[in-house]
Amino acid sequence: MSLAGISRSGSTLGESPPYSLTEIHRFIKECMQAIGTPVSHAEALATCLTEADYRGHYCEGLNQLETYIDEIREGGCNKDAVPHILKETPVTAWVDGNNGLGVVVGNFCMNLAIKKAKASGIGWVVAKGSNTYGIAGLYPLKAIDEGLLGMSFTNSYPMVAPTRALESALGTNPISMAAPGLNGDSYVLDMATAAVAVGKIEILGRKQLPVPKEWANPETGALRPLGGHEPNSNYKGFGLAFFVEIFCGILSDSAYGPNIRKYGNFTQGANLGHCFVALNPTYFAPGFEERLSDLMNFIRNMQPADPDKPVLIPGDLEREHMATTDREGGVRYVKDLVASCRKLAQRLNVKPLSPLE
Amino acid sequence: MSLAGISRSGSTLGESPPYSLTEIHRFIKECMQAIGTPVSHAEALATCLTEADYRGHYCEGLNQLETYIDEIREGGCNKDAVPHILKETPVTAWVDGNNGLGVVVGNFCMNLAIKKAKASGIGWVVAKGSNTYGIAGLYPLKAIDEGLLGMSFTNSYPMVAPTRALESALGTNPISMAAPGLNGDSYVLDMATAAVAVGKIEILGRKQLPVPKEWANPETGALRPLGGHEPNSNYKGFGLAFFVEIFCGILSDSAYGPNIRKYGNFTQGANLGHCFVALNPTYFAPGFEERLSDLMNFIRNMQPADPDKPVLIPGDLEREHMATTDREGGVRYVKDLVASCRKLAQRLNVKPLSPLE
Repeated sequence: MSLAGISRSGSTLGESPPYSLTEIHRFIKECMQAIGTPVSHAEALATCLTEADYRGHYCEGLNQLETYIDEIREGGCNKDAVPHILKETPVTAWVDGNNGLGVVVGNFCMNLAIKKAKASGIGWVVAKGSNTYGIAGLYPLKAIDEGLLGMSFTNSYPMVAPTRALESALGTNPISMAAPGLNGDSYVLDMATAAVAVGKIEILGRKQLPVPKEWANPETGALRPLGGHEPNSNYKGFGLAFFVEIFCGILSDSAYGPNIRKYGNFTQGANLGHCFVALNPTYFAPGFEERLSDLMNFIRNMQPADPDKPVLIPGDLEREHMATTDREGGVRYVKDLVASCRKLAQRLNVKPLSPLE
Repeated sequence: MSLAGISRSGSTLGESPPYSLTEIHRFIKECMQAIGTPVSHAEALATCLTEADYRGHYCEGLNQLETYIDEIREGGCNKDAVPHILKETPVTAWVDGNNGLGVVVGNFCMNLAIKKAKASGIGWVVAKGSNTYGIAGLYPLKAIDEGLLGMSFTNSYPMVAPTRALESALGTNPISMAAPGLNGDSYVLDMATAAVAVGKIEILGRKQLPVPKEWANPETGALRPLGGHEPNSNYKGFGLAFFVEIFCGILSDSAYGPNIRKYGNFTQGANLGHCFVALNPTYFAPGFEERLSDLMNFIRNMQPADPDKPVLIPGDLEREHMATTDREGGVRYVKDLVASCRKLAQRLNVKPLSPLE
């Protein structure tokens, strides 16, 4: 399933031998080129999906490649489209993604937001006419490379029920925010506003275990907002999902809420909305990075309730996963995915994905 | 206790006869003037606390008056201080609250953000050197009166434990966001990033019932972040509380996280940090208010899981409370509060708070 911004949902390493990041990137890029995607767009998608797997967000990595291909082949997404600016000021822009690849739209918008924040303190860019843009965290990471705070938000297929409602009306609408600390350290939040990631529910399904009522409505299957059930303040999670929809669909005039097409209908564009913000901390108090690192390190060094589970900052889990990948030389996948990549290579006449020797 | 941004924590009406909003405002203003607060500052605090009670956020209303008075009398907060701008561009400002009343700092900053958003699309203002600023929702409400989106954030006394940590290191760090719909309708989120409001825990304490482990750590009493415990993704709530701290303490160079003084030490300024954002939707796609109202009304009309509990939009509960207050002619308080206001009136030689005839 194509779900933007799911965190920690697929952090179990697969049983395959490791595949190097270069090889994963090569494979994705060649598959996309084989269906006629311009090289720059194929490159952008390859970077996006490889980064997701590198960070341990497997739901949004190589696993999604066939969905992107299907969406393009069935006419739902225009592989050649480039976004264009509909309205612009030194600090804002409204962009039409022209039904292009979400990552192409996302990169365009985040780069624009960064340029504005460097020149004028803030860049706030919203896009309509887009498609799934991969991990929400990809875009704020570009901002921290420039010493800026970055944020990204996207709406998505309706899967989450508002508090008290039976059926879903909003997507898992992720919030991502990143900020630079000292010496390359950073805070990187990338969270869906649903109670738990869909991946966790899928795992229970595979084990034939019941799904807790706090995670999804047992009658309709609609996901609960963050918080779970109402006594645990799930109206806050719902409020946040709605807030993301305001930044995305309502500001940009894309599809929104229940108007977004269901997942799996690839014959029409999703017309998703995104929002990207870059903020220049040098426009405020000096010493931003020092203070951020001080707070992150204080919290990391706090006494944990369970000595085997150290206290982490958002982004630390991903850093651990990246370190493991580096140590092993690459990413390990589950068998199913390796098999489907083999078939895909045959179908598209692309050199198969090859593991490390 | 003085806790910013607690939602739904005190929505039980008290047993007293109703007190009109005008009378509550008069009483607060006169008490503040009696301790030498300049009239404009006394007026601002009276409006802030009265609005909190009107909206049903009793934790931040009249209930807090004595705390504000104690903080001023013990030298923790400078009743005369006016904020000043340290650094400014057309879209950003960094403000020093000069240890003034939080509401004075908040009004100054939000008005500045609104002015910038009207002229240039966005206003992003952060303040250091402030104190408790009342309900977080007060400030975004000013933005929607001008047709803008508004946001406010504040850090606060450490009460919430990071995921996996035993002790607290962050405040209940609220997020408030408001956006205008058609015909005066609006979306108004005002939520603490803790799992539940402190008020809910206090109520259990009074009834001598145990506090669920998802709400607070039974060993240390530290509140859990939104989500409750780790299996229900409380790292998202922690990530959000940290995000708020980045916008407040880290951007502004106020106190932050565990460096913020504990509640109850009124002999020094709290040096809290706030962040205020105003965004002009006319800089993006036309038709913002129509789309927002369409989505709000769609969700309100969804089938509820329990027919007696209609689906609500953030802000609807407050509107219901305001309608009840209007119908009754005023706000009803619990006995304890009425009694302490009577003593306060005597102590300050102010005309007592009088209920409706």
